[in-house]
Amino acid sequence: MMHSQKVHPRSEKEKKQLNDRLKRVEGQVRGLQNMVNEDRYCIDILVQLTAVQAALKKVGFDILEEHTKGCVSSAVKSGDQTESIEELMQVIKQFSKT
Amino acid sequence: MMHSQKVHPRSEKEKKQLNDRLKRVEGQVRGLQNMVNEDRYCIDILVQLTAVQAALKKVGFDILEEHTKGCVSSAVKSGDQTESIEELMQVIKQFSKT
Amino acid sequence: MMHSQKVHPRSEKEKKQLNDRLKRVEGQVRGLQNMVNEDRYCIDILVQLTAVQAALKKVGFDILEEHTKGCVSSAVKSGDQTESIEELMQVIKQFSKT
Amino acid sequence: MMHSQKVHPRSEKEKKQLNDRLKRVEGQVRGLQNMVNEDRYCIDILVQLTAVQAALKKVGFDILEEHTKGCVSSAVKSGDQTESIEELMQVIKQFSKT
Repeated sequence: MMHSQKVHPRSEKEKKQLNDRLKRVEGQVRGLQNMVNEDRYCIDILVQLTAVQAALKKVGFDILEEHTKGCVSSAVKSGDQTESIEELMQVIKQFSKT
Repeated sequence: MMHSQKVHPRSEKEKKQLNDRLKRVEGQVRGLQNMVNEDRYCIDILVQLTAVQAALKKVGFDILEEHTKGCVSSAVKSGDQTESIEELMQVIKQFSKT
Repeated sequence: MMHSQKVHPRSEKEKKQLNDRLKRVEGQVRGLQNMVNEDRYCIDILVQLTAVQAALKKVGFDILEEHTKGCVSSAVKSGDQTESIEELMQVIKQFSKT
Repeated sequence: MMHSQKVHPRSEKEKKQLNDRLKRVEGQVRGLQNMVNEDRYCIDILVQLTAVQAALKKVGFDILEEHTKGCVSSAVKSGDQTESIEELMQVIKQFSKT
């Protein structure tokens, strides 16, 4: 069962909240570039880089939780959970390596 | 010993290489925003998000290696390694949590 | 809803398979102690330690998958998924930090 | 330059401290086996498993720090740091994946 579209579309408000957070991450990555240009001390750059990773991971967890409550639960209720739980586990494993 | 500037400034070429990679990460984060706007399937967004994390982590490791070969080694040679190794370990621990 | 017992008890065969893997991990941890006693090179000890972590994490993922397919799916079907998904997410977050 | 033995052997006291911690980890892994045998709730087993991982990772970081202060610093001082920093980075990358 190939997916391309979200089964439970987000509201415009939810989209904005998620994208505001991603825009902040984008801004933080630009900040890293400035630190490189300004020859900032490596440890300071690395501390900032781990802050960007933490913010990105938080966004990921929130999407994961939303997906589990939405798409996975719907699949379970319709008795069709095998594939969606396999997918969920693949992403969780991928997540824990990065 | 507070640091703000890099002890071994990067060449312009090195800066460009590093910032080209960070610009790609920045572009990937914008790509995530488009996927949210297009109501793409959550798993697809999460797979792309882990790719961004992996790219960011790779940049981090390269900065870490360069710092160890440069600043930390200089501190060791000058017999002043305690603080720089403490700093190094703090960042490594932070890195492994994100 | 406090849990202490497993809602879907494992078969004796499943228990044995899981505990055989945990016994191997236990043996590997004893192996680390021997390496310390034999003054083995730190890097060799650390490489072995990451192998133990990987084996332990694999056991964890398999329990997580089984739990998602069993307990969480049952809770979803009975319309009582909120707590079990919250629990699931907490463990996934904990997992990705270690 | 192949290594098998530690360049800076630990004192007997240091060995005992490290192995006492590893023995506790070993005991925790046995504890997991008991939880499996007692059909304990999966989330409780997973929470305990992440505690074992955290303890093991802490031991790993302490060995990593000791190695950096000992063997790597000696190699840097003798102008022979390339290989030891390469090894160090390999282990740090491995560490951050588990």
